[in-house]
Amino acid sequence: MADLTNMTKEQLEARLAALEAAYDDYKARNLKLDMSRGKPGPEQLDLSMALLDTVNEDNGAVTASGVDTRNYGMLEGIAECRKMFAELFQVEPEQVIVGGNSSLNMMFDYIAQAYSHGVCGGAPWCREEKVKFLCPAPGYDRHFAVTEYFGFELVTVDMTEDGPDMDQVERLAADPAVKGIWCVPMYSNPDGITYSDETVRRLAAMETGAPDFRIMWDNAYGLHHLTDTPDTLLDLYKEAAAHGHEDRVVMFMSTSKISFPGAGVAALASSPANIEDIRRRLSFQTIGYDKINMLRHVRFFGDAEGLRKHYAQHAAVIRPKFQAVLEALELHLGGKGIARWKKPNGGYFISVFLLDGCASETVRLLKEAGVVMTGAGATYPYGRDPRDSNIRIAPTYPSLEEIRTASDLFCICAELACTRKLLEKK
Amino acid sequence: MADLTNMTKEQLEARLAALEAAYDDYKARNLKLDMSRGKPGPEQLDLSMALLDTVNEDNGAVTASGVDTRNYGMLEGIAECRKMFAELFQVEPEQVIVGGNSSLNMMFDYIAQAYSHGVCGGAPWCREEKVKFLCPAPGYDRHFAVTEYFGFELVTVDMTEDGPDMDQVERLAADPAVKGIWCVPMYSNPDGITYSDETVRRLAAMETGAPDFRIMWDNAYGLHHLTDTPDTLLDLYKEAAAHGHEDRVVMFMSTSKISFPGAGVAALASSPANIEDIRRRLSFQTIGYDKINMLRHVRFFGDAEGLRKHYAQHAAVIRPKFQAVLEALELHLGGKGIARWKKPNGGYFISVFLLDGCASETVRLLKEAGVVMTGAGATYPYGRDPRDSNIRIAPTYPSLEEIRTASDLFCICAELACTRKLLEKK
Repeated sequence: MADLTNMTKEQLEARLAALEAAYDDYKARNLKLDMSRGKPGPEQLDLSMALLDTVNEDNGAVTASGVDTRNYGMLEGIAECRKMFAELFQVEPEQVIVGGNSSLNMMFDYIAQAYSHGVCGGAPWCREEKVKFLCPAPGYDRHFAVTEYFGFELVTVDMTEDGPDMDQVERLAADPAVKGIWCVPMYSNPDGITYSDETVRRLAAMETGAPDFRIMWDNAYGLHHLTDTPDTLLDLYKEAAAHGHEDRVVMFMSTSKISFPGAGVAALASSPANIEDIRRRLSFQTIGYDKINMLRHVRFFGDAEGLRKHYAQHAAVIRPKFQAVLEALELHLGGKGIARWKKPNGGYFISVFLLDGCASETVRLLKEAGVVMTGAGATYPYGRDPRDSNIRIAPTYPSLEEIRTASDLFCICAELACTRKLLEKK
Repeated sequence: MADLTNMTKEQLEARLAALEAAYDDYKARNLKLDMSRGKPGPEQLDLSMALLDTVNEDNGAVTASGVDTRNYGMLEGIAECRKMFAELFQVEPEQVIVGGNSSLNMMFDYIAQAYSHGVCGGAPWCREEKVKFLCPAPGYDRHFAVTEYFGFELVTVDMTEDGPDMDQVERLAADPAVKGIWCVPMYSNPDGITYSDETVRRLAAMETGAPDFRIMWDNAYGLHHLTDTPDTLLDLYKEAAAHGHEDRVVMFMSTSKISFPGAGVAALASSPANIEDIRRRLSFQTIGYDKINMLRHVRFFGDAEGLRKHYAQHAAVIRPKFQAVLEALELHLGGKGIARWKKPNGGYFISVFLLDGCASETVRLLKEAGVVMTGAGATYPYGRDPRDSNIRIAPTYPSLEEIRTASDLFCICAELACTRKLLEKK
């Protein structure tokens, strides 16, 4: 395929005409597709329907250890569910708190707790003159938004193939106003990057200016493999503990994309000191999270291995959708010098980088043709991609047929935007 | 029955000997009973088991309006559930947000929001030099604890038969540092008092020093009637709106004591401006609450009337337990001049006032004999009852037989403590 960046003005104009014609054809089809959020499709949700029947009149609602999940109590969650998550987090069950249906909620509440009360005896962050938070970008918009909500200054850190640029992180973390960093360490949102062992080691070992620096370690896709050659992730907590930095690490996880996005179970794990801090706050905040739903999950999945096996069924459903997007990208944009992307081994997204200044125009063109994408820039702090280059594709929710159509159209819109941009410079 | 306060020293000593002998007999029985928290008993929980089967493979998880409750979305809750709560709150469904399983969690989060961000454009409460909150006492310990957690000064307001002493409330609310008041307006915890129309009208109409004064209106027992002559409560929101004070009112409710304490559905209702404030915070805080559980509740209860009818079954279970306590109190403490209590028409508690200085000793005696009560003083701000007089009895969880035993023992302990106190003065 010809590299557009080497084309003459005339060649580009000819190409543009062809693209515009193709685009108009798509527009005439009045499509209505959504590739904006990482939402499982109905077929995936159907995989867990039997979970709903695990706690009822026939099966009862009492745990193996004799707890009636219907009543009040058990602020940290039922023992069986803590154990299941402890296996995944590779910590002791006592270091796990099982929450409600949203790990984002647990992260928000943790930041809110740091804001109003500080962590581990430190001053409340709301009393600091300035709080900064590191945001590896592209990253997860809703992480960034939590810290923006509390008025923290978001500091962009570049993502590399190995995770956040650790030279930048180490330099920035020396500033005592920098209180933490957001991380999706495995199959990162949106790039699908898994942090290298070296990155994890440096995060664990580095010196930080703030004694209450926190790594918000959102392992949202920790067992969300797509291929037979899954990535592996080093155990951050163990590494940090080896440096006496165990209080630095707060880990999150959920079954949102394994059971149900709206009715899964979330959990966090951390050092004993952090868990005690959080448990104390919970003793004021709630009567305890939904234990019946915890029991449903324990009975349906059994253990960590059960969760992994179940996810393989999800992977079978969504793998063809990822392949369809990747094939379209390769076929229509490969070798044209205007786009790059990574084939992820897991996670929920494909992240495409276009020529600078072409992302928002591509998203606009798609929207005009009936395909909703995550807003360009959403993957950067404050929603501003300095290069206007990155677009996040979420291929799970639409049907395979719809994904094929949307991917083809995506490529046309991307090439259209890039061709026009190249022509501007001629 | 002879009034102990008129007895001679010799009469009291004779009575004391008899009480001590009776107490020792109970102690020898090695009881293990709990009347400490307002927990429904297993028989009550069984009433809702069919709720668990309303959403499953057979019935599906899609609402009447076509929403797949399994997936992400619907920050304010599913329409059908908002409608059900709107009926109870007597507001428009748009004024309702349905939450997770804990109304306490919604209250905590609202106070946290006011702390970090203020309400309706006002300054964040964490920026105020001092924040005070009115706590009608005796009241609900966990309400007081939420505001204590955020460092507010708790200001005790006396409870009267008509609700909080409104002369005190009006005087205190003139202070701009006073940001709000906790209220359990119907069958109050622990006294079982329902606010009079006059009290509700004065709360609605009063001038407050703080423009962002909030009434935390926790209608936890709004349909939890025990008798055929239920109390009635005036509509605070309507009254407040008539004075242009609708933003003052934030109302809470849950099905915790109608379906399941650990897995019910909570909701709040307020003015459009407050709802917009809360909705904005939720857009950062969570991916939305558990919609499958909302759908279960809608399918099982149908509507507000369904909830009311269902609660009548609870009342049938717990009414004899309340009667057992009241009969014991009347039989053993009636006319002795050392205790007073109110027969509540609903709610979850019986509140007993003993001679000053006798509550904590009574609770200690009970504990030594194997009966756990809510700590004396728990119903007052900072856990300190200035008179050491009030004890909260929660009769729902133990069996009727256990309640009978515990009530008899309660009376013995109370009379024992009071007799000793009277003897001190001889």
